[in-house]
Amino acid sequence: MPITLQDVAARAGVSKSAVSRTFTPGASVSAKTRAKVEAAAKELGYMPNVLASSLTTGRTALVGLISNNFTNPYFLEIFDLFTRALQEAELRPLLINLSAEEDASRSLSMLQQYNVDGVIVASSTLPPDFAKVFHDAGIPVVHAFGWSSDTPQTGRVSIDNTEAGQLAAVTLIERGYQRVGFLGGPQNAATTLDRLHGFRAELAIHGLSPEIQFATAYSYDAGRVAMARALDSAPSVEAWFCGDDVIAIGAMDASAAMGQRIPDDLGIIGLNDMRMTGWDRIGLTTIRQPAQHIVSASVDLIRKGIADPATPPQNVILPCTLVERSTLRAKP
Amino acid sequence: MPITLQDVAARAGVSKSAVSRTFTPGASVSAKTRAKVEAAAKELGYMPNVLASSLTTGRTALVGLISNNFTNPYFLEIFDLFTRALQEAELRPLLINLSAEEDASRSLSMLQQYNVDGVIVASSTLPPDFAKVFHDAGIPVVHAFGWSSDTPQTGRVSIDNTEAGQLAAVTLIERGYQRVGFLGGPQNAATTLDRLHGFRAELAIHGLSPEIQFATAYSYDAGRVAMARALDSAPSVEAWFCGDDVIAIGAMDASAAMGQRIPDDLGIIGLNDMRMTGWDRIGLTTIRQPAQHIVSASVDLIRKGIADPATPPQNVILPCTLVERSTLRAKP
Repeated sequence: MPITLQDVAARAGVSKSAVSRTFTPGASVSAKTRAKVEAAAKELGYMPNVLASSLTTGRTALVGLISNNFTNPYFLEIFDLFTRALQEAELRPLLINLSAEEDASRSLSMLQQYNVDGVIVASSTLPPDFAKVFHDAGIPVVHAFGWSSDTPQTGRVSIDNTEAGQLAAVTLIERGYQRVGFLGGPQNAATTLDRLHGFRAELAIHGLSPEIQFATAYSYDAGRVAMARALDSAPSVEAWFCGDDVIAIGAMDASAAMGQRIPDDLGIIGLNDMRMTGWDRIGLTTIRQPAQHIVSASVDLIRKGIADPATPPQNVILPCTLVERSTLRAKP
Repeated sequence: MPITLQDVAARAGVSKSAVSRTFTPGASVSAKTRAKVEAAAKELGYMPNVLASSLTTGRTALVGLISNNFTNPYFLEIFDLFTRALQEAELRPLLINLSAEEDASRSLSMLQQYNVDGVIVASSTLPPDFAKVFHDAGIPVVHAFGWSSDTPQTGRVSIDNTEAGQLAAVTLIERGYQRVGFLGGPQNAATTLDRLHGFRAELAIHGLSPEIQFATAYSYDAGRVAMARALDSAPSVEAWFCGDDVIAIGAMDASAAMGQRIPDDLGIIGLNDMRMTGWDRIGLTTIRQPAQHIVSASVDLIRKGIADPATPPQNVILPCTLVERSTLRAKP
C-alpha cells in the first residue's frame, strides 16, 4: 500500500492541508509544522509527488531554461547562476538546448506538455513566435541577456546595450584611438545592433565613424575568422570593439597570428567579463554585464509572473561597467 | 471545454490509442498516423499533458542531470552533448546544480518528487548514498565522466583513468623527461586517484617516481595556486601531468608568472581535450576523453535501464588518446 498524505497527517498530528503545504514549493507553513511533517514523512517513507499534486494545484514548479549558447563559455557561468537561483526559489530548471531542435515550435509544445510554470530564455536571439505562444497560454516568459523587438509581451532583463556601445566608444576615444572598428556578433541579434548603434552614435559626436564587421556566432572560431577578414579589409584600424568576450579572444588570436602585438599594434575591448577574461594569458579589457544581478532579477520576474499571471511584463535595465585589463593602451 | 484525446482521435479518424502513442515519447506509431494525429491536434488546439499521462504510464521522460562542475568550461561541452542526446532520445533533462545544495539528500528527494525516469550524474565525485537511494527506488543511475568505488549499483561510462595515467607517463618518458610530477585534481576524486595510480605504476617500471601535488578543485584558480606551491616545493621537476585541462591552464599561467617558459623550461600535459585547449594562446598537449561517445553510451544505458529496470548496471570503458599540441618538448 502506498503511503498517503492522510497517513502522514495522522502521524504528524496535523491537517492534510498542512502536509500538502509543506510539500508545495513556495507555500506558507510554520517551521514547527514543517519539522513535524518532515519527520513523519521520513518515518513512513512518504515521498510527495509534485506532478500528481500539480493536477490539482496547476503548479509544477518547473521552469523552462532555454538557450542556444552552448559554445560560449560565458553561458556556463549563466547556467550556474540560474540553476542556483531557481533552486533557492524552489523552482526547477528544465534545460532546453535550442540549437539541437530543428525548429522552435517543438520546444514550445514540449514545455507546454510539461506544464512549466514559466520560461526563462537566456539567449541573445529569441524566435519571435516564442513569446506569443507562451503569452497566449498564460505562461510568463522572461528574456535574459538579450531581447527581440518583436516580443513586447515578455519580461526582459539586460544591460542597456546602446549604453554599452557608447561606453566602448568613450573608452577608445579616451585612449586616443581614432580609427576604430566594430567586430559584432551575429547581424540578426538585437544585442549586436544595439551595441553598434550606441558605438556609432558616440563616435559620430567626435566626428568618427567605425569600420564594421560581423562574426557569424558568439564563438571563438567565428571571432577568429571575422578578425582575419577584418585585418585584411581594414588594416588601418587601431582598435576593435568586439561583440563579446569569446569573439574578442578569437580576434586576439587572429591578430597575433598576423604578427600584431596587443595592445602595442592593436587594441581590443570585449563585452561580458566572463571569468576567463581574467586569466593571465587572456587579460582582456572588457565591459562587464552584472550577470548575478541579471539572473536574480530574472528569477524575481518569473516568480512574480507565476504568482500573478496578470502582472504586466517588466523591462529591467542594469548598468554595465568597464573592467580594465591589458588589451588597450593606456590613456595618453 | 478542454479538447480531449477522444476529440483528436475522432477528427484524425484513428484510435485513441494511436493518439496516445503519438504523444508518448519513444512509443511506436507510423509516420502516416503521426501526421494525421498532429494535424488534427493542431486544428483543435490540443496539447497533451505528459505529466497527467505519467500517472497512468508511470513514465515522465524526465531525466535528472546532476553535476557539481559549473566552474570547469569542459562541462559546458558536456551539458551541450547531454541535452542534445537526451532531446534526440525524447527525454528531458532536469538540471541539478549539486554545488548549490547544502546536502545531496535534498536533490534526491526532489528528483523522486518529479518521478524522474532515470538519473545521469556528470561529475568526478558522486556522494556514496546517491546510488543506493535511487537503486532502492528502482530508478536507474548512470555515472558519466567519473565514478565512485562505493557505488556498484550504478551504470558507469568513462575512460580507464589508470590507463590515462599510464599514457601520460609513457608520453613524458618518450620526450626524455626524468623528473616528473603529478598535479592532480581533488584528492577525494576517484578519477584523480586512478590517474595517479596508472601514472606512478608506469613510471616505476622505468625506475622513476613522481612528485605529487593536489589542486583543491577542477578549476583554473585551484590549478594556479597548486602550481605556484609545486614550483616552490619541487623546483627540479621538468614536466607535470595535470589533473585536467583547466587545472593545466592555471598551472601554465602560474609557471609563466614565475618566469618559466613552456615547453623550453617546463613541460605540461593535461586531460580532457576541452575545445579551448586548441585556442592558439593555450595550445595544450593533452589526453583526450571521447566526450561524444561517453555521452551517447550514457544515454543508451539510461534508456535500457528505463525500458527494463532489471537490466544489470553496465560499466562501459572507452579509450583515451594523446592530442599533441605545444606544451611538451619534441621527442629527442
